[in-house]
Amino acid sequence: MDMVDIIHRVGIAASAGEVYSALTTNEGLAKWWTTDTSGAGSVGSIIKFRFGGGGPDFEVVELQTNSIVLWRHSGEMPGPWMGTEISFHLTRGENQTYVLFSHSNWKEPSEFMGHCSTKWAVFLLSLKEAMETGEGKPYPDDIHIDHDE
Amino acid sequence: MDMVDIIHRVGIAASAGEVYSALTTNEGLAKWWTTDTSGAGSVGSIIKFRFGGGGPDFEVVELQTNSIVLWRHSGEMPGPWMGTEISFHLTRGENQTYVLFSHSNWKEPSEFMGHCSTKWAVFLLSLKEAMETGEGKPYPDDIHIDHDE
Repeated sequence: MDMVDIIHRVGIAASAGEVYSALTTNEGLAKWWTTDTSGAGSVGSIIKFRFGGGGPDFEVVELQTNSIVLWRHSGEMPGPWMGTEISFHLTRGENQTYVLFSHSNWKEPSEFMGHCSTKWAVFLLSLKEAMETGEGKPYPDDIHIDHDE
Repeated sequence: MDMVDIIHRVGIAASAGEVYSALTTNEGLAKWWTTDTSGAGSVGSIIKFRFGGGGPDFEVVELQTNSIVLWRHSGEMPGPWMGTEISFHLTRGENQTYVLFSHSNWKEPSEFMGHCSTKWAVFLLSLKEAMETGEGKPYPDDIHIDHDE
């Protein structure tokens, strides 16, 4: 099987600046991924995302205002995320800001990767909802995609 | 960039038989992907999925009862789907049936592929909802992920 990256795209009725803020500040990230987010800041910052205790850390490795956000996984949790990167590319459409998302450099496809791919879609729709209605669905109010969560 | 396949996984509180039926019959498929579905049947069938006029055709290439469903894209619409395959692998968990989905053999990653990946997540959650509550969100009642639809 081919090397597999996760990619997604949503279109959000908000300015690129508003979306960029939701990807680069603790309070913005807390509105759509997990309410327990800390450490967001400039390049070199380590953002800590927590989900009822544990959760991943990501280092901010590139920021282009209102355009590009790139994180590299830091630490050891979850194991299959070691070595992976997450990117957000923002572009303006006529009446929306497109967010092209990738979670790349997975070593191999797996059931867990399939789970993460679906879950990322749920969280990107949470980002869209947060921007458009003022209220997203971050953890612990996230939409469940199976009966393990 | 690496070759990119789309994969997703959901867990559904229904038997493998119920999920398999929703993947292999016109009335089952109409409950979660598009209400305008025809042609579903045994291996060699061409299933026509229509979305307000146009839409893709898929040939059924493998069926293993309550376990595997494999389709190969047929025809020329949409262009980037030519040569692609869709698979559903069903496995039983303690209190759910896992559906591991793939849409593979894309020639290259693209914005359109990102769109399709997110949209597949939405439709798989529609499948889950249809099985668990009796009512999914197939086209034309599908959840929109941007402001082009």
